[in-house]
Amino acid sequence: MGKATLAEYCQVKISLIDEALSQYLPAETYPPIIYEAMRYSLFAGGKRLRPIMLMAAADAVGGDGNDFLPVACALEMIHTYSLVHDDLPAMDNDDYRRGKLTNHKIYGEGMAILAGDGLLTAAFAMMVSQTKVDPAVLVTVVGEIAAAAGAAGMIGGQAVDLISEGKTIDAATLEFMHQAKTGALFKAALRAGAMLAGGSKAQIDALSQYAEQFGLAFQITDDILDVVGTQEKIGKPVGSDIRNHKATYVTLHTLDGAKQLAQQAVDNALTSLDKFGPEANMLRELVMYLITREA
Amino acid sequence: MGKATLAEYCQVKISLIDEALSQYLPAETYPPIIYEAMRYSLFAGGKRLRPIMLMAAADAVGGDGNDFLPVACALEMIHTYSLVHDDLPAMDNDDYRRGKLTNHKIYGEGMAILAGDGLLTAAFAMMVSQTKVDPAVLVTVVGEIAAAAGAAGMIGGQAVDLISEGKTIDAATLEFMHQAKTGALFKAALRAGAMLAGGSKAQIDALSQYAEQFGLAFQITDDILDVVGTQEKIGKPVGSDIRNHKATYVTLHTLDGAKQLAQQAVDNALTSLDKFGPEANMLRELVMYLITREA
Repeated sequence: MGKATLAEYCQVKISLIDEALSQYLPAETYPPIIYEAMRYSLFAGGKRLRPIMLMAAADAVGGDGNDFLPVACALEMIHTYSLVHDDLPAMDNDDYRRGKLTNHKIYGEGMAILAGDGLLTAAFAMMVSQTKVDPAVLVTVVGEIAAAAGAAGMIGGQAVDLISEGKTIDAATLEFMHQAKTGALFKAALRAGAMLAGGSKAQIDALSQYAEQFGLAFQITDDILDVVGTQEKIGKPVGSDIRNHKATYVTLHTLDGAKQLAQQAVDNALTSLDKFGPEANMLRELVMYLITREA
Repeated sequence: MGKATLAEYCQVKISLIDEALSQYLPAETYPPIIYEAMRYSLFAGGKRLRPIMLMAAADAVGGDGNDFLPVACALEMIHTYSLVHDDLPAMDNDDYRRGKLTNHKIYGEGMAILAGDGLLTAAFAMMVSQTKVDPAVLVTVVGEIAAAAGAAGMIGGQAVDLISEGKTIDAATLEFMHQAKTGALFKAALRAGAMLAGGSKAQIDALSQYAEQFGLAFQITDDILDVVGTQEKIGKPVGSDIRNHKATYVTLHTLDGAKQLAQQAVDNALTSLDKFGPEANMLRELVMYLITREA
């Protein structure tokens, strides 16, 4: 595994994740409409970044990420639920996501709300019912993930996003929003992987720092892609942030300034892995990939 | 406690529940808008039936329900989130709930969706972070509650409700819907209380039967109240089920037939408690109260 490229590593993990998710939420379960709606967004081309990060973090502290597949899958369900709800007309009102119609455009708003609720709930159910690990550790991990997903994390970030619509926000608010909306779950993924695999406190702290810088680099490159990306690749209209008067790292720091900030965050993330050996190579490659990504 | 009346017992439990909920979701937390929206529905006059049932079940098997307050509170958060989402325009489109404006009428649809998401997530966070109990038991209990709240339970029931709107549904579908929407969480409440307090398998089975009959009696009396209740007491327009062409126990079985079915369910619930002593008196009183309730 130490010699696998990032692409190979991800390919293997993605098959495992997709199979586990599909088995856990079988299409033919009654009532089929809700499982169909949940599966539609769950299998709509997500990169499985968060579950891969959890597994790579477990690997980095000397464990085997595959042992914690149910928790990894739960992160993808939480991420997907948040996208389904964020896309709703009452929120960002997006018709397309990754080039496909959004959940409510296919199933209607009511069912899309329920599909999101179902994914969020299934995430917790899967974690606690499928993970073979010391229950005391699992309880701590579930608590961290719930906190990251909750009002102090993802939901709080989305709430600030919602009330900031059409308003000018300052850099501190922008940073809170991104840290809460995106950074918190990245951090929970890294910490969960390390904790489940029995990482030391020093390792968990180092991976937390990595996660923070990763989240920052992720958001900045997201904002950059909104300006320089192509609709085909990013799956939504280019420049929508600017048209929606959203504050972004590009609008606040210029395009060049944003690129420098992204590079700095990647460098910081790499530095936080200094004490790790080759077991952390996938985490190193993952954060370097952010700078080059096109979607 | 064995000599307390149901009203006294509930009053004590409700203070404990309300205080614990209020402490866990403090109003002044950043970002305040989402905490305010969550608290609005959480403190909008709910009867705290599910948390009380969990605590009464723990008492019934010889434990002390107060020891499991965080799990009890989590049930109320799950119940409340489901009401907030069910009331949305894309679902039941209700402007009033318990005589007060619904969450989205105050905070808007987007924030109401987030408030529901926040309550659901906080429920899991509170359970795993605040409960002092053997983690192995806690993991099992959280799994049961998540299953009851999920696509096989509450969310599945609401999905069937949503796609059945304006359609004639048969008695079997009606029963699934109610069992899933309401019965599943009652059952999880009873089982969770018994499991947390170390109840035997026989006790847990008996309380599961009690819960099923309780859920049935609850739903039938709900349907009866929609016909014979007063708007002032039930907090929503009387007869709305009939106007919305909803299949109910009254429309399927006549008013007298429904009353008989409710009484039968109450009798069955009481029978399932035959092996319990006075520790189960609150559960006995609770189910008898259903027949006489006016809201």
